[in-house]
Amino acid sequence: MTGSTWSVPETEVVQSIRDSLDDRAAGATDPPDVLATVVGVEGNAYRRPGAKMLLSPDGEGVGAITAGCLEEDLASVAERIRETGTPEVVTYDLMDDDEDIWGLGVGCNGVIDVLLEPLTETYRPAVDAFAEGHDVAVATVLDGGDGPLARGDRAYYRPDDGTLRTPAGDPATDWPAGLTGAAGDLAGRGRGDTLVFDDGETTVEVFVDGIAAPTDLVVFGTGHDVGPVTELAARNDFRVTVVGFRGAVDPAERFPEADRTVTTSPGRLEEADGLRLDDRTHAVVMTHNFVDDRIVVETLLDAGVAYVGLMGPRERFEEMLEAFADEGRRFTEAELDPLYTPVGLDLGGGSPYQIAHSIVAEVLAVANDREPRHLKTREGPIHERVDLDAGDGDGGAAGGSPDAPTQ
Amino acid sequence: MTGSTWSVPETEVVQSIRDSLDDRAAGATDPPDVLATVVGVEGNAYRRPGAKMLLSPDGEGVGAITAGCLEEDLASVAERIRETGTPEVVTYDLMDDDEDIWGLGVGCNGVIDVLLEPLTETYRPAVDAFAEGHDVAVATVLDGGDGPLARGDRAYYRPDDGTLRTPAGDPATDWPAGLTGAAGDLAGRGRGDTLVFDDGETTVEVFVDGIAAPTDLVVFGTGHDVGPVTELAARNDFRVTVVGFRGAVDPAERFPEADRTVTTSPGRLEEADGLRLDDRTHAVVMTHNFVDDRIVVETLLDAGVAYVGLMGPRERFEEMLEAFADEGRRFTEAELDPLYTPVGLDLGGGSPYQIAHSIVAEVLAVANDREPRHLKTREGPIHERVDLDAGDGDGGAAGGSPDAPTQ
Repeated sequence: MTGSTWSVPETEVVQSIRDSLDDRAAGATDPPDVLATVVGVEGNAYRRPGAKMLLSPDGEGVGAITAGCLEEDLASVAERIRETGTPEVVTYDLMDDDEDIWGLGVGCNGVIDVLLEPLTETYRPAVDAFAEGHDVAVATVLDGGDGPLARGDRAYYRPDDGTLRTPAGDPATDWPAGLTGAAGDLAGRGRGDTLVFDDGETTVEVFVDGIAAPTDLVVFGTGHDVGPVTELAARNDFRVTVVGFRGAVDPAERFPEADRTVTTSPGRLEEADGLRLDDRTHAVVMTHNFVDDRIVVETLLDAGVAYVGLMGPRERFEEMLEAFADEGRRFTEAELDPLYTPVGLDLGGGSPYQIAHSIVAEVLAVANDREPRHLKTREGPIHERVDLDAGDGDGGAAGGSPDAPTQ
Repeated sequence: MTGSTWSVPETEVVQSIRDSLDDRAAGATDPPDVLATVVGVEGNAYRRPGAKMLLSPDGEGVGAITAGCLEEDLASVAERIRETGTPEVVTYDLMDDDEDIWGLGVGCNGVIDVLLEPLTETYRPAVDAFAEGHDVAVATVLDGGDGPLARGDRAYYRPDDGTLRTPAGDPATDWPAGLTGAAGDLAGRGRGDTLVFDDGETTVEVFVDGIAAPTDLVVFGTGHDVGPVTELAARNDFRVTVVGFRGAVDPAERFPEADRTVTTSPGRLEEADGLRLDDRTHAVVMTHNFVDDRIVVETLLDAGVAYVGLMGPRERFEEMLEAFADEGRRFTEAELDPLYTPVGLDLGGGSPYQIAHSIVAEVLAVANDREPRHLKTREGPIHERVDLDAGDGDGGAAGGSPDAPTQ
């Protein structure tokens, strides 16, 4: 497996799963791809629960579940699973055992539980939801206890639907009632967790893999400086739309990394096809044209977007506020809260890539609701714990592991 | 000009200048390339003074001096300069003039002074210093007044040498005595500024272009996760060395974006060929092997490097400190100051690229001596002012413009 297929964005891993399902649906008769998902992490692992890797019969893999420590062994487990057709949970114990590690040279730490399964159509609803821009949680039974569920059984929960469903789309009736609340929480945050349900008769262990829809980043502008921003944002799993205005260069041609491009005019953003401006939208405004920027900023703030990064010095925005005031438009402090100008984190770099790096770093921090300080100065675990009590309060969830740190 | 040549790292712009000089030295008889350098900025410009672009006769350019607003006009000025052979300073006034901008559709703001000159061997000492890893300041006369200096005359200052020299290497005697102090300051910080010297008889205007040697980033480890870190660091102008240990994959093969790769063992870092560990070195330690990491961290801290980012959760480093203590090695708080663990800024992302993005953002901030907060929360100008009083105190520098903001 090459480094380039290992470090693909998460969006591309999901796309590979979709492609694989499509190939089989179209009649491909190769042995199936095997999907490996991290379902549990303890200690010092590189990835979080929910990290996925798709292993093809030729030994290639797309995606990363460790920093390269287990990939060889996984390929041989995948081979076995292709033969048996049965999902397995494999536990890798890579904890440092004093100096033994020197001899082993394992090069990784932590205990990692990995679910390996032949990829089948039961996964289809997840990739469909992702493609349509909806959050989804994939629930997979790791241990069905004495009940009706077996390892590998699957159900889905979409917050926009509100019902736990089987892969065929029917309500999933055999599943623990307490699942939906935690599933909704995990889906929205794109986090995975193993939940244990005990109804007094049997114990069921379910891995819930929350797959959040990609965050929308809309970049306004078609200057050269838009290129590095678009490229870095796409690699960081944003769904990037580049918006160009009247007579500008064709954004589709210049920004191949963008998921979508739109050509419109500043006053017609709300009618523009495929341009969703709502409280999930993040936007960077860098047309370098004062009047265009002003109209776009007003439209975005009025639409209540989550983030507006405006390129330019503070004085330029102060001029913009004066121009708004001249038109009788005044913004409250709360209305200006999503506006970040000058755009970007204070990293001190001045090259095009350094500017783009600081912009995308800022959007990441805001989208993930983080204060962009050094991790070393942060108190507590790197990742917040999963809110196990979230949901409909029927008390089904009896436990679960906290989100593991990524490092 | 394509976006990809516009947004190249600064290191590649300097490399292009070198290649162009080499071609001519080898006998190429094409019309010369023209070097465009931003020598003054007022208002809302994208790049800082010192931003460079190399314009070739076929209309192509490497590097960026604006966000794409002037590049077409520059090509025609360059054509003129190829014919006359005479350097020119061209001033572009892109300030917003109320609504006129709408009609103009210029799409950029600010007043920008650009020096355009035929690229000649007088620039050779700058690219040589850069290639050898030395800071250098290139002093170019913009206006010689009534004195012996003429526009385009050039001198060099290397802090490691301490003497202002002509392109031929002789001491530069006709130049303002006050130049060396400011030149040393600007060279170390990689900043450019126009300085005005008035000795009572004549006024001389000199642009001093500080070109700092690239910052060294040494990455320890050869896992897949090293790939995105190496790639992003190289694009952000770090000179990247990847260090692999005994029997690991060949780093040269796996990390094509690295400037150098070294294979050694953890205990022999100080003897390793081409590995410079000093107070300018920044390092990321991500071997995923506890013992290797521990030896590397100790060596780096003892060498007094500027920054050590250690991958892994805080608890892992606490274990490491215990292991050090068991060997009788204790670190003071000051000794641990350069150590950042968990490595990276708190941006909340968990994918390989997101982790790498947060690591490189942290290294950028530390290398540039910045607190990584939102620029919108930062008081004062985005870039610190040039210390005009730096230097040998002979009072020659009579003025100069502050560093311009990049946005």
